[in-house]
Amino acid sequence: MGMSEQPGGEPTIDMVVQAHQALRAQKPLVQCLTNNVTVNLVANALLAAGATPAMIDNPEEAGRFATQANAVLINLGTPQGDQVKAMHKAASGAHQAGTPWILDPIGAGSMKWRHGLALELLEHRPTVVRGNASEIIGLAGQEGNGRGVDSAMSSQTAVGAARELLAQACAVSASGPVDTLVGPLLDRHHNGQAVVEVGGGSEWQPRVSGTGCALGAIVAAYCAVVRDPLCAAVAAHVHVAVAAELAEEHAQGPGSFAMAWLDALDQVDEALLRQRGLIAVRWLDA
Amino acid sequence: MGMSEQPGGEPTIDMVVQAHQALRAQKPLVQCLTNNVTVNLVANALLAAGATPAMIDNPEEAGRFATQANAVLINLGTPQGDQVKAMHKAASGAHQAGTPWILDPIGAGSMKWRHGLALELLEHRPTVVRGNASEIIGLAGQEGNGRGVDSAMSSQTAVGAARELLAQACAVSASGPVDTLVGPLLDRHHNGQAVVEVGGGSEWQPRVSGTGCALGAIVAAYCAVVRDPLCAAVAAHVHVAVAAELAEEHAQGPGSFAMAWLDALDQVDEALLRQRGLIAVRWLDA
Amino acid sequence: MGMSEQPGGEPTIDMVVQAHQALRAQKPLVQCLTNNVTVNLVANALLAAGATPAMIDNPEEAGRFATQANAVLINLGTPQGDQVKAMHKAASGAHQAGTPWILDPIGAGSMKWRHGLALELLEHRPTVVRGNASEIIGLAGQEGNGRGVDSAMSSQTAVGAARELLAQACAVSASGPVDTLVGPLLDRHHNGQAVVEVGGGSEWQPRVSGTGCALGAIVAAYCAVVRDPLCAAVAAHVHVAVAAELAEEHAQGPGSFAMAWLDALDQVDEALLRQRGLIAVRWLDA
Repeated sequence: MGMSEQPGGEPTIDMVVQAHQALRAQKPLVQCLTNNVTVNLVANALLAAGATPAMIDNPEEAGRFATQANAVLINLGTPQGDQVKAMHKAASGAHQAGTPWILDPIGAGSMKWRHGLALELLEHRPTVVRGNASEIIGLAGQEGNGRGVDSAMSSQTAVGAARELLAQACAVSASGPVDTLVGPLLDRHHNGQAVVEVGGGSEWQPRVSGTGCALGAIVAAYCAVVRDPLCAAVAAHVHVAVAAELAEEHAQGPGSFAMAWLDALDQVDEALLRQRGLIAVRWLDA
Repeated sequence: MGMSEQPGGEPTIDMVVQAHQALRAQKPLVQCLTNNVTVNLVANALLAAGATPAMIDNPEEAGRFATQANAVLINLGTPQGDQVKAMHKAASGAHQAGTPWILDPIGAGSMKWRHGLALELLEHRPTVVRGNASEIIGLAGQEGNGRGVDSAMSSQTAVGAARELLAQACAVSASGPVDTLVGPLLDRHHNGQAVVEVGGGSEWQPRVSGTGCALGAIVAAYCAVVRDPLCAAVAAHVHVAVAAELAEEHAQGPGSFAMAWLDALDQVDEALLRQRGLIAVRWLDA
Repeated sequence: MGMSEQPGGEPTIDMVVQAHQALRAQKPLVQCLTNNVTVNLVANALLAAGATPAMIDNPEEAGRFATQANAVLINLGTPQGDQVKAMHKAASGAHQAGTPWILDPIGAGSMKWRHGLALELLEHRPTVVRGNASEIIGLAGQEGNGRGVDSAMSSQTAVGAARELLAQACAVSASGPVDTLVGPLLDRHHNGQAVVEVGGGSEWQPRVSGTGCALGAIVAAYCAVVRDPLCAAVAAHVHVAVAAELAEEHAQGPGSFAMAWLDALDQVDEALLRQRGLIAVRWLDA
């Protein structure tokens, strides 16, 4: 996957379309160390989106595999003894080998033990941190959220915390009814950071366990085929949001939504991305 | 969740409707320490029914979380080293904090090691024990069941064993084609224990892995919003049975049943509960 | 399950029909020690096909349970500390008790640590080894496959490796667009080994995580009710392929395919097996 041929530049729908074509062509191998609640949905969402999942999360293999995979996801949903060891090795292996890796800091801020784990992993410089607003805010040490894994906050409230996390990560995304992504962006006229808002999606998403976890994995997949982490994350968020919008049209409830969303992750194509993708960019000049 | 405002009293459809409204309004946070086979269905069934799942099952966090959650589920489907430690801490934490907690003693009676684990957990006084008839009978030490996790017994055969378990638990439920629940019940005319039978449901339920586990989690959710454990368990059983009956109308097999059941757990409302809920109460005077 | 009444003989559709009737009548108890990514699909596929799953994979219970179960599946998708101990005990228990057991050597050949684990388990003489072509080739030590759990190779390329593995296993199957199975076969005219090709299936199968894992479990279920391991494996492959073909007719994508495939595993009957089952046998005389 030659870096020089990767899509990049500004987060526009043209870029998303290019990124999506690269994903489908390259089928990147995404190593996941993720929670046992939603690991099946994560694997199936990667397959549906066009990537190749490999759930290698034991301490014997995880570190070496991270040097060979095209991208790595580390999700803190249900960390346990051996898997935690594997997470340290995978984050370190990915960082050293230059493999893009994504941190999904579930419960950061609200639960002390895993908050400490998230901070340790952060030292290995994730390519993207993806979470909901309360987790991004909690990880940055700004405030806690007593409900743990659940969040009712708007993603826009996390912009300040996300900017702080850019000291460790190349880009940060916060999910919500509208998703908010933050990262460095250069163009002819600007030289600083940008906030990108991705709209669309469906109200069923938070009613299905693991749609956020799957999004984190798809961010990893796009980071394998798109040079710029902010653009990669934007492409993933648009792909997922367009699929959710399509799925909602076929859903009678959370069960049928989940099924239709997997179908739609596969069905998304250039026409649908152009027709339904919603991106708004705002520069934050330094 | 003020106890004084909780529904309670006799297990009638009026009570179930009230309990369901309380569930939807309060979206209780239910901590689950459950098996890795059906953990995804358990999380999605809680979300569909109207609760908020949090699968916190590591020994570092489980005990403290159980003091803060609105209810706790401990399911013995696939206990492993670290999770077993977390189960002890969660049961103890829940008991000490007064958090309602549910024990689903999968395999009790038929498998010695986990039978011992179930007995240890029983000392922390679960609010409700929920299982199939052979597990309830096995947990009470009455007889074994060589097939382990499978049961073909009618739930009514478990009434004697269930009454014995009321020494440790506030209520006991046994699932089957008709569900049988046992617990203390007071009214103007009686002062003793009652057997409540909940009918309905679908023959597809035992053909989908985890419908029983999900029921246990939904019992936990109702225990967070209903003061009386027997009434809470009855409300959960009726909600699940009505949803199963609805789902059967859309099912071509076990795959489509599982999907439709999640949809139906969300769709259940007052009208459906009144139209389809089947409850029969029989007093067992002391 | 009296061995003397079990179907056997040549791998024909008549044999498959008999085997399927035996499966439905006997509902064999299949113990699974499998990966946490697809364990739910494995359990549901067993239930849909007509078997009784029991996911007993802790070191305290796995060995003893393997002496009592009707068949055992050991799948190396996500091996971890305690589960690895349980795998050794289950393989040993099954071997000593004469319980048929199936090895699914995910990642063998490409990942050193689990390759070693697979070789250790092979010493307990699995009844059938089931994998994709690269895993069968890798397990036999013939060559590696850098992509780990993914395989694009045709199953026919694994015939040589499969024949080598017959030193340890009674039969070997390699999955692909056409499945290839190898084992000893006797008839009036031949005395040696046969290659059986099973056609049909659907292109959606590799797009859903765990369809191969579920096939391995269904091979185990048939080994409990069919005396000859090659015939048992052929029956399982035909059942799964016919169900996949049926499911494809109802699929709009990978999500709806997975659901329809579970429905179809249940719907498969004599007429569908006769109408759609595709078997070709080729003798490899010694």
